[in-house]
Amino acid sequence: MVPTDGSMVRPISRGLTLRAFIIWCILLPFIGISSGAKTRHFKWEVEYMYWSPDCIEHVVMGINGQFPGPTIRAKAGDTIVVELTNKLSTEGVVIHWHGIRQLGTPWADGTAFISQCAINSGETFHYRFKVDRAGTYFYHGHLGMQRSAGLYGSLIVDVAEGEKEPFHYDGEFNLLLSDWWHKSVHEQEVGLSSIPFRWIGEPQSLLINGRGQYNCSLAAQYSNTTSSQCKLRGNEQCAPQILHVRPNKTYRLRVASSTALASLNLAIGNHKMVVVEADGNYLQPFAVNDLDIYSGESYSVLITTDQDPSKNYWLSLGVRGRLPATPPALTILNYQPISASKFPTSPPPVTPRWNDYDHSKKFSKSIFALMGSPKPPKSYDRRITLLNTQNKIDGFTKWAINNVSLALPPTPYLGSIKYGLRNAFDQKSPPENFPNSYDVMKPPINPNSTTGSGVYMFGLNTTVDVILQNANALSDNVSEIHPWHLHGHDFWVLGYGEGKFSAKDEKKLNFKNPPLRNTAVIFPYGWTALRYVADNPGVWAFHCHIEPHLHMGMGVVFAEGVHHVKSIPNEALSCGLTAKFLNKKG
Amino acid sequence: MVPTDGSMVRPISRGLTLRAFIIWCILLPFIGISSGAKTRHFKWEVEYMYWSPDCIEHVVMGINGQFPGPTIRAKAGDTIVVELTNKLSTEGVVIHWHGIRQLGTPWADGTAFISQCAINSGETFHYRFKVDRAGTYFYHGHLGMQRSAGLYGSLIVDVAEGEKEPFHYDGEFNLLLSDWWHKSVHEQEVGLSSIPFRWIGEPQSLLINGRGQYNCSLAAQYSNTTSSQCKLRGNEQCAPQILHVRPNKTYRLRVASSTALASLNLAIGNHKMVVVEADGNYLQPFAVNDLDIYSGESYSVLITTDQDPSKNYWLSLGVRGRLPATPPALTILNYQPISASKFPTSPPPVTPRWNDYDHSKKFSKSIFALMGSPKPPKSYDRRITLLNTQNKIDGFTKWAINNVSLALPPTPYLGSIKYGLRNAFDQKSPPENFPNSYDVMKPPINPNSTTGSGVYMFGLNTTVDVILQNANALSDNVSEIHPWHLHGHDFWVLGYGEGKFSAKDEKKLNFKNPPLRNTAVIFPYGWTALRYVADNPGVWAFHCHIEPHLHMGMGVVFAEGVHHVKSIPNEALSCGLTAKFLNKKG
Repeated sequence: MVPTDGSMVRPISRGLTLRAFIIWCILLPFIGISSGAKTRHFKWEVEYMYWSPDCIEHVVMGINGQFPGPTIRAKAGDTIVVELTNKLSTEGVVIHWHGIRQLGTPWADGTAFISQCAINSGETFHYRFKVDRAGTYFYHGHLGMQRSAGLYGSLIVDVAEGEKEPFHYDGEFNLLLSDWWHKSVHEQEVGLSSIPFRWIGEPQSLLINGRGQYNCSLAAQYSNTTSSQCKLRGNEQCAPQILHVRPNKTYRLRVASSTALASLNLAIGNHKMVVVEADGNYLQPFAVNDLDIYSGESYSVLITTDQDPSKNYWLSLGVRGRLPATPPALTILNYQPISASKFPTSPPPVTPRWNDYDHSKKFSKSIFALMGSPKPPKSYDRRITLLNTQNKIDGFTKWAINNVSLALPPTPYLGSIKYGLRNAFDQKSPPENFPNSYDVMKPPINPNSTTGSGVYMFGLNTTVDVILQNANALSDNVSEIHPWHLHGHDFWVLGYGEGKFSAKDEKKLNFKNPPLRNTAVIFPYGWTALRYVADNPGVWAFHCHIEPHLHMGMGVVFAEGVHHVKSIPNEALSCGLTAKFLNKKG
Repeated sequence: MVPTDGSMVRPISRGLTLRAFIIWCILLPFIGISSGAKTRHFKWEVEYMYWSPDCIEHVVMGINGQFPGPTIRAKAGDTIVVELTNKLSTEGVVIHWHGIRQLGTPWADGTAFISQCAINSGETFHYRFKVDRAGTYFYHGHLGMQRSAGLYGSLIVDVAEGEKEPFHYDGEFNLLLSDWWHKSVHEQEVGLSSIPFRWIGEPQSLLINGRGQYNCSLAAQYSNTTSSQCKLRGNEQCAPQILHVRPNKTYRLRVASSTALASLNLAIGNHKMVVVEADGNYLQPFAVNDLDIYSGESYSVLITTDQDPSKNYWLSLGVRGRLPATPPALTILNYQPISASKFPTSPPPVTPRWNDYDHSKKFSKSIFALMGSPKPPKSYDRRITLLNTQNKIDGFTKWAINNVSLALPPTPYLGSIKYGLRNAFDQKSPPENFPNSYDVMKPPINPNSTTGSGVYMFGLNTTVDVILQNANALSDNVSEIHPWHLHGHDFWVLGYGEGKFSAKDEKKLNFKNPPLRNTAVIFPYGWTALRYVADNPGVWAFHCHIEPHLHMGMGVVFAEGVHHVKSIPNEALSCGLTAKFLNKKG
């Protein structure tokens, strides 16, 4: 695999001579100084608090009294240390650093039951990892549905000192997108695990940087909505964060979606957006009027403030892919020096029709890697096909992959695989395909499926192809969007297609300039083809990033080269069978 | 100390000769058979579920799909094994066996951060303990406010095979009392830890065996209430459990209170109750028209069905000690063969006025041990006085004992004391008294207090006197009832008094026939004097049994002879510093 990150460290162990290694070691301190790499320490406490994200007060999960959590800002090459104390009364907690590949630190990936034990109430865990590559990232809880409860924040990595982005901008804004329910996450979880099944429903609000308006509309005066015009002074927790710009400049908007459910579309009145980055990877720039963004994705877009400078403009965010029951989130692009409280002259941009999948597919298929980006290996060593189905298990509604619904074991895989604890999870490898006769266009003939905790084991440096195959859900004529997110890696998105993936689709795959991503969507009744190199020793979740879907079993676990993983901190292993093993081992 | 349990095992190690010991060893198997002692195994799973305890659906914490949890029924001398699996998604869990002294098994007491690590999500813990003495007990969660969430059930211990209770009855009923809020416990907890402080308020309903009626009244037709008459078929989750009796019989009512807050009063129309047991100890029988019962207490009362057999009668349960905002819980005493649906001819008994403390004190002071019960040692080795105050810490509202508000450390004391881990908690012993100048009749002059995790350490077999001293809360003219519950022991209740305990009160203490209890109330502006022998190696919580008060720091920790504790199971220690210690120790 061609390294995608330009880091100095990884190639060393591969092919350099001893002489080069010694020189490198001598130079290392100087490189360190010249690159300005820093270790950045953060001390965080997670706890519940009352908050009004959408002007209605509810309980949210906050960090250091903030919602969303504090933004981490670092430079490529920096080391981040987060000393995380769990101040929750009864719950465990972990934090996943979404998009950070955790090269060499798989135990810091922050996935409960996979990379570490949940941090117990009252205890402190030390996340320590390198942000090796500039980009727009975020972090979030990865235990139960704590992300839905509000446990998320931004992680922005700038280029290293002396480096430059391959595009110019005069200023930037950071927009972390999310969706919000008034029913507590605890109750949502119970509903999902009840008979009869109780779906969480559509979100009450969409939030931009944790701010939305439920009981009023910023743009009521333009529409025939029943909502009243918001009367906000600006200092409320739910007041929109205004984007103050100056005319004739270029701004970078960093946009990341931490939604629990909603696929989103973002548009700015009168302004085109040039898409330049996705999930920490540079793209071949392309212009759009509106941006589709699925949960788990991030983008950077450039906007030029070349419109009438006597006006302000709407930024609007709406729901895609599900019949929307949620009003758009809005904020204002304010052309200074005019007042931010001057209303735009036109109504906010309207989101494309929720089921206009052609629009979505057109957007996804416009995404290519920036010229000169790493290319995928020409062939794969192993290909697995993952059929996405909705199923029933003992009367419970679940999602399953190749007929197995993921049930995470109490002992995290990283430790149990490393120490060969064979009782910790299903030792049988899960299926790599599904029966050829399966009709993806119809509800399953036999909806019953089973739970499992098996792992797909890959030899280190295996080139893996994953074909994500969508299908009909339990109800007739329903096939949903699922954004799949891979931990510990980026993958090349080789292509999207309709119906069942077959040999003839092979030829349509893009090996020339496929984008590197960590999240890729499967469209209803379609497939998505991914390729990645299993070159990062560890155990990695690969799952639908829709929070309730993951909770219902929609994920798989990949492992590679775990015996190469060194020095897992004990604090990551102090539960279940690894705790017992360490006791015996001493 | 005179053993209170009549067990065969404990005296052996004290004073018997070797010869007697050998004889005893030979006889042991036969004693075992003749006593019929059994090991009773239970396999439980704790999870949230939808339930309608008061006809309104909410989320409750259930065991094996039941609310309240399954009733454990055993005989004195039996061993109980509960294999408890935590099926909660993000929360830990423990279960405390309220009233069981855990002689020799302090690690099975089920107090998170004190006797064991919380059982992590997905994991199983094995409680194994002996129920050495007949009585009416219950069990409940002891982490965060999980008891309030519905994690409780009954534990009834009958006399050993061939033994007899010191009173006769023809049948029995078991009534587990609780209170219920519509606001989730998660949100209640956040409110208690918020600035400004948000009190949980009065319960929406009182429950008898998990059953109450919020939106209707069983007795609407008798009163000028605005509630409508309940229309229940009897198979609803909220339908009252009818007490079916036959005329001219004697019935034992076992009554235990697991309320989060409410002090209760129970009465049965036209029927006197003879109180015969409290907290697993026999009482000198006395008759009452109504029974006060505080959270953490249990009683057995005998009723004789000597009333007009052509009628049914109300059993009514109301709130005491706080201005009530909760309707009474009701059920029917049904004289068979007449129909249970025949309404009593009179309205339900009315609870005494909430602040008629004279009534409450008269009841408490009528409780004496059954003649022949173990008597307290004549003098104490050490006396500590515990001042109960409401305080402020960094703007948060707390309860404190001698100006220290209990903040439990992440590493359970039992392990950290046993292994000498001095960083695990405050090594300084908490204060044993309060300044003489403190005016218990007025709000604190300086309301600020501190949190602490210190432990009162007692030498094994020390006779300890505890003077619980009530005081004025933060507001003028407010002093609340607090039922204090001791783990691992019973104590003798030597007396109750008004104002500040002083030398002159000493003479009024009852050393002749004080009742043995595990829970004793302090009345507003009063004191309660207790004596117990610290003869049970372990670490034991002593706390106000009002769930939000404990959550706000109203408790202390007692430890005695921890170095005598043998073979703490690793599963009780696999967190915090004990996990680290065991890793190193191997």
